[in-house]
Amino acid sequence: MNQIVIEKTEQIAEILKENHIDLWLIFVRETSAAGDPVLPLVYGDSGLTWDSALLFTPTNEKIAIVGRFEVDSAQETHTFDTVISYDESIKPALLQELERLSPNQIAINTSTNDYLADGLSHGMYVKLMEILEGTPFADRVVSAEKVVSALRGRKSKSEIERIKKAITSTLEIYDFAFEKIVPGMTEIEVAAMMRQEVESRGLGYAWPKHNNPAVNSGPDSPVGHNAPTDIQLEPGHLLHFDFGVKENDYCADIQRMVYLRKPGETHPPQAVQEGFNVIVEAIMAAFDLIQPGITGIEVDRAARSIVTGAGFPEYKYATGHQVGRLAHDGGCILGPDWDRYGQTPYMPLEVGQVFTLEPGLIVPGFGYVGIEEDILVTEDGAVFLSPPQQELILI
Amino acid sequence: MNQIVIEKTEQIAEILKENHIDLWLIFVRETSAAGDPVLPLVYGDSGLTWDSALLFTPTNEKIAIVGRFEVDSAQETHTFDTVISYDESIKPALLQELERLSPNQIAINTSTNDYLADGLSHGMYVKLMEILEGTPFADRVVSAEKVVSALRGRKSKSEIERIKKAITSTLEIYDFAFEKIVPGMTEIEVAAMMRQEVESRGLGYAWPKHNNPAVNSGPDSPVGHNAPTDIQLEPGHLLHFDFGVKENDYCADIQRMVYLRKPGETHPPQAVQEGFNVIVEAIMAAFDLIQPGITGIEVDRAARSIVTGAGFPEYKYATGHQVGRLAHDGGCILGPDWDRYGQTPYMPLEVGQVFTLEPGLIVPGFGYVGIEEDILVTEDGAVFLSPPQQELILI
Repeated sequence: MNQIVIEKTEQIAEILKENHIDLWLIFVRETSAAGDPVLPLVYGDSGLTWDSALLFTPTNEKIAIVGRFEVDSAQETHTFDTVISYDESIKPALLQELERLSPNQIAINTSTNDYLADGLSHGMYVKLMEILEGTPFADRVVSAEKVVSALRGRKSKSEIERIKKAITSTLEIYDFAFEKIVPGMTEIEVAAMMRQEVESRGLGYAWPKHNNPAVNSGPDSPVGHNAPTDIQLEPGHLLHFDFGVKENDYCADIQRMVYLRKPGETHPPQAVQEGFNVIVEAIMAAFDLIQPGITGIEVDRAARSIVTGAGFPEYKYATGHQVGRLAHDGGCILGPDWDRYGQTPYMPLEVGQVFTLEPGLIVPGFGYVGIEEDILVTEDGAVFLSPPQQELILI
Repeated sequence: MNQIVIEKTEQIAEILKENHIDLWLIFVRETSAAGDPVLPLVYGDSGLTWDSALLFTPTNEKIAIVGRFEVDSAQETHTFDTVISYDESIKPALLQELERLSPNQIAINTSTNDYLADGLSHGMYVKLMEILEGTPFADRVVSAEKVVSALRGRKSKSEIERIKKAITSTLEIYDFAFEKIVPGMTEIEVAAMMRQEVESRGLGYAWPKHNNPAVNSGPDSPVGHNAPTDIQLEPGHLLHFDFGVKENDYCADIQRMVYLRKPGETHPPQAVQEGFNVIVEAIMAAFDLIQPGITGIEVDRAARSIVTGAGFPEYKYATGHQVGRLAHDGGCILGPDWDRYGQTPYMPLEVGQVFTLEPGLIVPGFGYVGIEEDILVTEDGAVFLSPPQQELILI
């Protein structure tokens, strides 16, 4: 029994009712090669090899149509009332179930906006349309974007517990590193030390270890999704980290800031402290605004305008994204109206969503300042899932 | 530097020429959520977050168009002559490159047949078509099925070395288990012992550990893609395994057969031995027939007809599939003309492909007989990548 699958599949019927969807149809094959990212939430870890259909209705029917050799495995999920087996072609069984259920709106996992609601490949879409051709169902297919986004976004009790655990471990590994870091180490050495601690704890990475942790020391370190370099940590550098572990399948995503003191310095230089304060302020502006129903673009604007209002250039990414099973967990984004974000900044926030808040800026001559906190949306607004960074760490 | 990416990208230009493709366009986003399965071969492990395009030409141009924060990471692959950066929308840069290259045939990763050539999601397909709308390129889009299938199928030197290493480890863990297995253990206990050995060696699983190894003892054990059960191993049982490790990103997939002797038995019962011999003969029939240019369906038929000709029911799956980075590595399949295999049984075999051969049958009262060997297609026909099982293992 997979507790996550139990909790998530319990959410489905209500979400389908809200969205007036009569049938949610997940159509997949060979999931070991390229699975629909929603499967771990509604089916669990076992693979589906041949063309397979998972059907969910607002009346809480749950049906799996799978190849003969995966019937037992589908039953072992304890999720489906009905498991239907086939040998040569899924078409007859699938059409028979569609005729029985007679849905007016069939939602499938395709979305130009939300990559996590876009688990249907184009080839499988063509295949599904060939199966439906000549039936009344061919014209009843709609996007399941809102269904997937709600299901994935509204974290269940166990999901929130797991995210909090991953954050705790991430912060522990940060503390471990902050005690050991000395000027003269390279970014690569610092990252290696942190990765060793991740692996000795038996944890995974929230994103590929290539740039997890990202480590940026001083003004010459390239900031982005790139790997740590052989730049040495020097007194007078801002030292920036972006790091997160995956624990029990759930992720943390946290950025932290260090200032490496020069001999005799008791405080960071004024420009450094001011840059840091702007980022803390920008995070709090977003945090204070968050409540269910507000759109991502409004939250983004609040943080972004603090940074630009303080005279810094606009950061060229979104203020925040959802976190969960993946570090970038899809759905609503706290971002600007840029083509690459599609319509996702216009989605309203919902209770149970977990977001990062991560504005950034450059302090010329010192380096990059970015802090990233993970927050939960509640009925009463945002709450921090761990203590936010309020002061520069001095080493 | 990723040796696999270097060897595989060297193959691309020639494959494009053979298939008269002017441009291969890989279009992806947020690959940590659902990457195109071809990316590890042509880009490596680092992720692509925003809409990204990888372009390959028969004149060996290699171009990456990626979000600004992933430029360094794209350059670190040492694969692309040109890395183009964008901030808000990929459209202008992509159209500019298309206009410069002016391709007549643009191959994209979509296929109803081959799931590994179907890495483009439907949402991304729609997005790409929106970008191309109103340009001459909208009508020049074709499937890259043959390109992906050739690239993935024709294993490079390092790929074959890695597969052989995974097979060696798999067989070592089998031997380890065969020394420890005694009647009275359950299937679950046997599987746990093997998994412990996999993990203590720091290896991964070629498919999810849920049913890796599959362990089937006696006539009542459900055979398929299901997990081991609490059925106890008993004298007089046929004991069947399906098992494979993933080592250094490449897979093995091997089935082995044991007979658990009753007190006083020196040989397996005649029916058991006969069933076993039929499977060995079926594997050899397929093995002997394999040569470049023959189609999968012909090879399948050779093995299948041995089993049915000996009076056993037809096995309801393909005689073999490709193995590589994935246990089910896509492309040509040694299978029958069933809807669920699409056109893949009609693809001709090519030098460098690695296939399983895995016919099966049931000996009533004793259990399932299935052997699975991994073979390489060479110019002179098939070769075994490890010694094939010729005799039942007696415990």
